[in-house]
Amino acid sequence: MKALVFDGQQLRFDPAHAEPQAGPEDVLIEVWLAGICATDLEIVRGYMAFRGVLGHEFVGRVVKGPRGLVGRRVVGEINCVCRKCDLCQAGLSQHCRQRTVLGIQGRDGAFAQYVALPRHNVHEVPDSVSDQEAVFVEPLAAAFQVVHQAKFEPRTRVTVIGPGRLGLLVAQVIARTGCRLDVVGRSETGLLFCEKKGIQPLAYQSVVPRADRDVVVDCSGTPEGLKLALAMVRPRGTVVLKSTHARPAEINLSSLVVNEVTLLGSRCGPFAEALTALAARQVEVSSMISKQFDLGRAVEAFEAARDPRNIKVLLRVR
Amino acid sequence: MKALVFDGQQLRFDPAHAEPQAGPEDVLIEVWLAGICATDLEIVRGYMAFRGVLGHEFVGRVVKGPRGLVGRRVVGEINCVCRKCDLCQAGLSQHCRQRTVLGIQGRDGAFAQYVALPRHNVHEVPDSVSDQEAVFVEPLAAAFQVVHQAKFEPRTRVTVIGPGRLGLLVAQVIARTGCRLDVVGRSETGLLFCEKKGIQPLAYQSVVPRADRDVVVDCSGTPEGLKLALAMVRPRGTVVLKSTHARPAEINLSSLVVNEVTLLGSRCGPFAEALTALAARQVEVSSMISKQFDLGRAVEAFEAARDPRNIKVLLRVR
Repeated sequence: MKALVFDGQQLRFDPAHAEPQAGPEDVLIEVWLAGICATDLEIVRGYMAFRGVLGHEFVGRVVKGPRGLVGRRVVGEINCVCRKCDLCQAGLSQHCRQRTVLGIQGRDGAFAQYVALPRHNVHEVPDSVSDQEAVFVEPLAAAFQVVHQAKFEPRTRVTVIGPGRLGLLVAQVIARTGCRLDVVGRSETGLLFCEKKGIQPLAYQSVVPRADRDVVVDCSGTPEGLKLALAMVRPRGTVVLKSTHARPAEINLSSLVVNEVTLLGSRCGPFAEALTALAARQVEVSSMISKQFDLGRAVEAFEAARDPRNIKVLLRVR
Repeated sequence: MKALVFDGQQLRFDPAHAEPQAGPEDVLIEVWLAGICATDLEIVRGYMAFRGVLGHEFVGRVVKGPRGLVGRRVVGEINCVCRKCDLCQAGLSQHCRQRTVLGIQGRDGAFAQYVALPRHNVHEVPDSVSDQEAVFVEPLAAAFQVVHQAKFEPRTRVTVIGPGRLGLLVAQVIARTGCRLDVVGRSETGLLFCEKKGIQPLAYQSVVPRADRDVVVDCSGTPEGLKLALAMVRPRGTVVLKSTHARPAEINLSSLVVNEVTLLGSRCGPFAEALTALAARQVEVSSMISKQFDLGRAVEAFEAARDPRNIKVLLRVR
């Protein structure tokens, strides 16, 4: 099958990659459309020391599995878990100690014609959600996780740093809470998107941090973003850290101690909420798609995904 | 008056320093005994860019102020606040935007014969608490802050990293909750102290992090301590960061994101609880005192405080 493979050094399109083996608990999915995420770009820079087929945002059709699922259009949760370890038993199965993670850790991903996933991981996509929209379910679920981790009320002052592919989803989800929200960033495309959505954009260079935000969500993926977040958040406020980095960064955490800030790491989130929000048109994602490439041009697509003028870049697999 | 002064470059004993001016809202306190804290050592390395008389842990006697307070033996809260700014109005006066902090920020400290503090800052010391014990009220209050920030139940697995002057107070306060506690560190003196208190000591080099602690409190004051804390805490667990550093450190926070860890900055705490615990003999501090020096030998005392074989070093001022 066609697949995009990272060998630890190089990203390359393989037109004749071995198909994944679906175990007895798995379904085999024919991938139709997939999305490139910042984590994919970080993996190519060495993050997670991953080798194999990349990709963890996708929509496709089940071609092998339980009768009720075959033929269904689905998206899939990325953490494949043991259901036995202490964390699974404690209800923290997204953090399973034996887990593999689709296209990130120990399991081939979705930038390929076929992908295998445990059947418990797949969610059927309602007809009212298009393929283009369904590709956003995984990152949109991650965005929803933020509103479960901190408190958002009408008078809560919130800033999202980094109006990129993830930040714009986070901003849209937070905007629904009715809080006082702005988005800080360098990307003109991203700030323009905010403006169109009625979310206050703030150009990075114009920001004077005043330690007055109740919550700051850092989706920048840069150490500068976290530094700015720590300067913008009020004492006893909350910073949600949404991005993972390949490299350690020089950070002075003494302001976190002095100001008694809460820093929350945030990763995956609830698929059901993301699907519901898309079906109910509460979040708009289609206009975030800047470019689409066939899988055969995936290396080129990665270059496009690195360009801050583009928001979301998709891979057509079917 | 005699005072220990830091001029930005050098620490020196000044036998003829100007006495502090007590304003109409202040009391003037004759200092009897004071304690050296890690923050003092960090200030001498450049932290907070402080210039002036150092010191913020002390016990003394009010010599000028309201009639009811003069002659009383007191300790003092270190944050001197405006009661007017948004944070004071919001009940966060410890984080007052206009605050000065005793011996740390914009206000001469307690390593001197006299110190001035707003009268709202002072707490009378009960007769059952000795001078030696009273010096610990400020850091013990900071230790109590930890049990207000995270949840400690009998089955909670907790590690304190850094059995130093602050860590041993934190460990004693946490031990009172009945949780499953151990203390990790390099200091033999500190680990021995834990053993004597019935708290499980763990030698730093013997620790194999298993991401299985519900709460880790980092009192190490080193970037290595925070790294170890992030490796020891379980997914969705809590790390309390208790130490401030003069320098930024290289930290990889991706494990915080992946494991959705909560990192809590923690600074000052409730004086009343610390005084009550000392009066009720719930926390034992006297055996933490390794050395005492006259104020005139303060520079030597700072050297002793840097030696990990010593826990607490006090300065006799009277």
